[in-house]
Parts: sequence; C-alpha cells; structure tokens
Amino acid sequence: MKYGYQKITNINFENVNEKLRKSLMEVGFGIITEIDVQSTFKEKLGIDYERFQILGACNPGLANKALNIEREVGLLLPCNVIFWENKDNSVTISSIDAETQLGVTGDERLIMLGREVNDLLIQAINSI
Amino acid sequence: MKYGYQKITNINFENVNEKLRKSLMEVGFGIITEIDVQSTFKEKLGIDYERFQILGACNPGLANKALNIEREVGLLLPCNVIFWENKDNSVTISSIDAETQLGVTGDERLIMLGREVNDLLIQAINSI
Repeated sequence: MKYGYQKITNINFENVNEKLRKSLMEVGFGIITEIDVQSTFKEKLGIDYERFQILGACNPGLANKALNIEREVGLLLPCNVIFWENKDNSVTISSIDAETQLGVTGDERLIMLGREVNDLLIQAINSI
Repeated sequence: MKYGYQKITNINFENVNEKLRKSLMEVGFGIITEIDVQSTFKEKLGIDYERFQILGACNPGLANKALNIEREVGLLLPCNVIFWENKDNSVTISSIDAETQLGVTGDERLIMLGREVNDLLIQAINSI
C-alpha cells in the first residue's frame, strides 16, 4: 500500500492486540494513545463496526529529536499502528509509512528519522 | 507553514487549552486522544520541555465516511491540533492540513473530505 506497511495474519484479534503491544515495546515504542473504533462508533454514531484499533506508538527519544528539528512535527505524531478484524477472522495490521508522512516537511533530517522509525515498526509487525 | 495551519496568540496556555477544546467541540470535533509532551518527556527522558499539548480531534461522522472509503485511512486519524508555549508566553496553535495529509491516499474523495476538515479546524482556531 501507498502510505503504510501492511500484513494480514490468521492470529486472532485479541492475540494480535497483545503481541503487537509487546513487540512494539521491544523495538522501543510505547503506546501513548489508543482509539477503539468499534466502541467509539457505537457510542457516537450508534453503528456496529468491526473490531478496529488505532494505536499511537511513540519512541520518546526519536520524538524528541524530531520536535527539536521543528515543533510543528507534533502534527504528525505519534506513529499509528492499526489493526482490524476481517470477515474471515483474519486480522490486517498496518503501520504508517513515517518516511512518507514526514516527507511533507521537506526536511531531509526528518525524512531520515522516518526511515529509522519505519524499520522499527516493520520489525515489530513482522515479529508477530 | 507547509502541512498545517498556524496561529500565534497572546492568550495564555491554560486559556488556550480550555478555549480550543470548546471551539473544536462547536465545529463537531471531540478530543479523542491527548499527549502532554512536557510530562511525557519529563517521565521518559528526564528532560525539561516547554508546555506542549497534542490533541487528537475527531468528527465521528467524517471519520466513518473516510474509513468506509478505505480502512487504511485509520493510519492518518485522528486530526492533530497542537499548541505550545513560547518563551515570551505567547502560544502557537497549529492544526494538521488534512487535505495534504489525505493526499497520500491519492483518492479524490478523501482529499475532498480533508478540505472539509480543514475548514472546520481553521474555523475553530480562528474563533479563539
């Protein structure tokens, strides 16, 4: 896909949820924000949605480096890792392409940081 | 700036924090995630940082429309509105340019939604 890395797994949703947090932690990313799309849409729109989670992952050291280059980069933080349950119970996991995301800044140092983030996020997803 | 709208105000940080939440609500955006950069960096890195808040704003109806076009758009949600305290006590407020952000999808319908979001976020910031 164009703006993220994607993997489909037959591991069930609960296990993906648990394993992904652990594997992100292992590459230095904590979960700093979280959106449960299913329960948000149920509450706000009254609709039934598939299980869908948006995790905001943050490596504080890299975030600090990025924000010291320009404060506006906070608009692009944290890095999202999302996963949702498909009809056949498989789960699609996807992480933002931080290099593309930070490309809008036009700053080569931030784009390099994005590349570093991508390597770590992809490593975390692939270790599941 | 290249990937967001920005305004500097002499209203103090606490008041911006309060007024911004109210004005976002008035244009249909709830705060769905929140990062206190100052306290996160203090806790995780032991450094002193200026007061800096990253709010994740979400209009559930528009988010639903976007996700129904493609699930991967969850990588780009929610829409960030950030603000930080400058040395002279003024506060810089900035909202993501959702049109640019959604441009990476290459989908004209999402880009149109991004434009709609921009109008609302800018309206909220300008009403402060």
